[in-house]
Amino acid sequence: MQAVVLLPGAVPMLHGFAVPLTPQGNCPLVSAPPWHYSSDCMAIEYWTDPAAIAALLPPGVTPDEDARGRAFFWFLDWQFTGSNDELTDPARYQYREAFVLVEAIIERTPINYCPFIFVDNDAAIARGWTQGFPKKYGSMYQTRSFSAPSAAAAPLATGSRFGASVSAHGERLATARLQLEDKIANPATIFNRPTVMRRYFPQLAAAQHLKPPVDELTLSLTDDLKIVDQWAGAAQLTMPPVQGEDMHSLAPLRVGLGYRLGMSYTVTDLRVLKNYV
Amino acid sequence: MQAVVLLPGAVPMLHGFAVPLTPQGNCPLVSAPPWHYSSDCMAIEYWTDPAAIAALLPPGVTPDEDARGRAFFWFLDWQFTGSNDELTDPARYQYREAFVLVEAIIERTPINYCPFIFVDNDAAIARGWTQGFPKKYGSMYQTRSFSAPSAAAAPLATGSRFGASVSAHGERLATARLQLEDKIANPATIFNRPTVMRRYFPQLAAAQHLKPPVDELTLSLTDDLKIVDQWAGAAQLTMPPVQGEDMHSLAPLRVGLGYRLGMSYTVTDLRVLKNYV
Amino acid sequence: MQAVVLLPGAVPMLHGFAVPLTPQGNCPLVSAPPWHYSSDCMAIEYWTDPAAIAALLPPGVTPDEDARGRAFFWFLDWQFTGSNDELTDPARYQYREAFVLVEAIIERTPINYCPFIFVDNDAAIARGWTQGFPKKYGSMYQTRSFSAPSAAAAPLATGSRFGASVSAHGERLATARLQLEDKIANPATIFNRPTVMRRYFPQLAAAQHLKPPVDELTLSLTDDLKIVDQWAGAAQLTMPPVQGEDMHSLAPLRVGLGYRLGMSYTVTDLRVLKNYV
Amino acid sequence: MQAVVLLPGAVPMLHGFAVPLTPQGNCPLVSAPPWHYSSDCMAIEYWTDPAAIAALLPPGVTPDEDARGRAFFWFLDWQFTGSNDELTDPARYQYREAFVLVEAIIERTPINYCPFIFVDNDAAIARGWTQGFPKKYGSMYQTRSFSAPSAAAAPLATGSRFGASVSAHGERLATARLQLEDKIANPATIFNRPTVMRRYFPQLAAAQHLKPPVDELTLSLTDDLKIVDQWAGAAQLTMPPVQGEDMHSLAPLRVGLGYRLGMSYTVTDLRVLKNYV
Repeated sequence: MQAVVLLPGAVPMLHGFAVPLTPQGNCPLVSAPPWHYSSDCMAIEYWTDPAAIAALLPPGVTPDEDARGRAFFWFLDWQFTGSNDELTDPARYQYREAFVLVEAIIERTPINYCPFIFVDNDAAIARGWTQGFPKKYGSMYQTRSFSAPSAAAAPLATGSRFGASVSAHGERLATARLQLEDKIANPATIFNRPTVMRRYFPQLAAAQHLKPPVDELTLSLTDDLKIVDQWAGAAQLTMPPVQGEDMHSLAPLRVGLGYRLGMSYTVTDLRVLKNYV
Repeated sequence: MQAVVLLPGAVPMLHGFAVPLTPQGNCPLVSAPPWHYSSDCMAIEYWTDPAAIAALLPPGVTPDEDARGRAFFWFLDWQFTGSNDELTDPARYQYREAFVLVEAIIERTPINYCPFIFVDNDAAIARGWTQGFPKKYGSMYQTRSFSAPSAAAAPLATGSRFGASVSAHGERLATARLQLEDKIANPATIFNRPTVMRRYFPQLAAAQHLKPPVDELTLSLTDDLKIVDQWAGAAQLTMPPVQGEDMHSLAPLRVGLGYRLGMSYTVTDLRVLKNYV
Repeated sequence: MQAVVLLPGAVPMLHGFAVPLTPQGNCPLVSAPPWHYSSDCMAIEYWTDPAAIAALLPPGVTPDEDARGRAFFWFLDWQFTGSNDELTDPARYQYREAFVLVEAIIERTPINYCPFIFVDNDAAIARGWTQGFPKKYGSMYQTRSFSAPSAAAAPLATGSRFGASVSAHGERLATARLQLEDKIANPATIFNRPTVMRRYFPQLAAAQHLKPPVDELTLSLTDDLKIVDQWAGAAQLTMPPVQGEDMHSLAPLRVGLGYRLGMSYTVTDLRVLKNYV
Repeated sequence: MQAVVLLPGAVPMLHGFAVPLTPQGNCPLVSAPPWHYSSDCMAIEYWTDPAAIAALLPPGVTPDEDARGRAFFWFLDWQFTGSNDELTDPARYQYREAFVLVEAIIERTPINYCPFIFVDNDAAIARGWTQGFPKKYGSMYQTRSFSAPSAAAAPLATGSRFGASVSAHGERLATARLQLEDKIANPATIFNRPTVMRRYFPQLAAAQHLKPPVDELTLSLTDDLKIVDQWAGAAQLTMPPVQGEDMHSLAPLRVGLGYRLGMSYTVTDLRVLKNYV
């Protein structure tokens, strides 16, 4: 059965954490938290033009001078489940994602800010918008590790080669390559900044287009974060200019290490850092 | 150039009517209105269980007793353009849609309410959520009329047969058939109710899940509405039960006439009828 | 009911013009001809490197010196029907296509040869392979003309702007633009060369990889060819280099006129010009 | 660089194991073997109507009376590579598949015959047709096992639940569920029948529609077959009737065990058992 949120005031009770709201509550894009995730990830460290990062930051978020333009490009194969065994309905709930995190500062705290993100699933778009991730629809692929030995298996081992790509509307936005070298003993040392987003919902009523009802700076809260099987190696990353997109403003000037890892966490909450309204 | 909305307070000016907001303003899911639309449509009149309609209506919207469960199932092939020649980028801006409209009453005014809608484009999802349409991602097809004569052309003529379908995540949600009989002299007599939606944006912050920041009853405002080339004929409609969906609660008990028509309008505004927050 | 081909020798009779063959014959990728087609098309005249064309021609097909590298890039929105009302099942039988035709000579006869073609439907791939079109899977879009007047309608009228694109596996292979200027009085003068293809089916049995069982030069036969509503205008075409593709070897050096037209025909036969086996 | 097959007799040398053939040889749907594969699989044992199996068998393949209608429904997440590091281009070469294998007999040898198969990638369709697999385009998903512990991870462990589905053109063709119980000590005991297919290429030339140039019974040859990490458990399988498909003729009457496993092999050859031409 669906874990439902009862909407107060509805005479016929309508259920759902997001639209569509129904009496049965079987079909909202998003059911109420907890939201559980597990993933295989490729993350490419790189440096872009610090001015391009600065130009994308929302009010109150400032450039991290020490980072000198450092960013990470992530590709993720996700499996999602809520309280209703969603993981056994992979046609609806398994999905792929790609995003950029740029290093920045909020009140002297180093954070990652997410200006661009793509996903291939409508439930993931809806959860993302609810958190503040500016998700658009894209098509993502990354090389997977299979357990049956083969030239096609890409095992977690020195020398294994991985590729990944993200496209939207038939335009390639980023392509990455990674060759594994070493297993990382302590993954916690690599990815330890909190992630900050801008949660935003537009206003269409005329004369109020400049007054969005939701415009907040939010902090992603992840319970039970686990990072496993993390490997590092030499990486490549390209982000060609594409008409109708702006993500290439963050194209790499220099590429650092690439990482391949497993990551899981649970989401039940969100912290609002600033309200811009 | 992008028609931009300047966000007040942003030190580096970020542009976009919806996310993602960028200095260049080339890539928001939605640019500022006006939004211009033209479409080819199939609409199937049918009657469902009045209790199923009543159970889906939000507060303040009441059943239309005279309608006895009347609804319309629509399939639409859309072309969109804003202020930047978007119609020449059909990979991003051409899309397909399917939705149900049920007949209801607000303060003694007959209206159509939209409880379910599917679309195959992320910009259309974002515009729809902004208006209050509870859009999910689907896959829609309808027979088209081509001008080159052929057994495959489906001309607008007596006897032409059309089909349409909507699926989501690989499950067929509705299938329709239509055989044209007569051209309608005065289309305005068929589709003349205003469309009402529930505009809703969830709250993720813990302990506030029941307090969505946006929960309104809205009225769709369409400028320059034109309906052309409207034909009517015998129709079929099936809406099988599908696990993980609720739209089949509105399955047809009886099917009326089917229509094939062209429709265009422009959106620049939205009227809020009630604020549920 | 399915128009079936009885396969000789099959004790349980299996039906289908292509695989899968079944007793019921409801599900082959292709049913037996006639195959009826109607389409809306954009075709862009352009000139590429004559040496690039020459390098792609199969044995017995020679460069057309007078053409000086002339080619056409086509985008087509197709509707297909066979003998079973397939046009009312658009989810299976409506599709989009893009291809290049290069001008060449066979035994002093000017022809068009098709070296690259993309389509978004498996039935169309199967029919194409059967004829000799080297179809791969792609994603195509072209601006459509809608009858309801709007800035989004793109009517067939002077000044209307159209765009089109083809992508495969998330890489943009070609993008075109067209602005209508004049209606063509006599369409037959523009597209009057027969189309020639290489029909090819590989051999996997070891030591016979160089001996394909089917390797023929074929001539497309189109009954009842009709071209209607043909307009011409100024055009643009780009074909960027893409890793894993070779179509950009035919990138434009110069672009001529663009055309927008309707086209229909029926296929029931194929002529084999040469057998390379 | 592309491993190419030189086509004899071509004055300008054209390369490719399948179409399109080009001088560069970068873009054929299929490059020459070896073809290396690794996969994660779900396979559901079930029993269907023996008469339905018998009706699908090609000449020379007879029912396996002892099998009493036994079949397996497979879902596979595949990674492919050839000789050019294709596994680092997952947008082109990673794919998903679903098929039915029915138990039958050829000359007193127990075999599996493949009457229906769906895949989501054009290169995989082309390789399949070359072998004799009657591949159509579909959309497949199966629950994956992720290494980062989570309610979403579906580890290989007693009690883990998996789901899988296959759809084509927006119609759900089969849905499976599996709950792991025991790890299988010796996987070789479960899947040990050779797989037999009908390799078929149609003839379009008029008056020869009944004379396909390729119509053979073939035997799949798999080098270095490895099956690893095989678990068994309780399973469910549904195959609803779908208009325009025939696979539901093999719907389950009874469902046996389900299996989750890893499998890899290499293909370089094909054995032709019978030539029906």
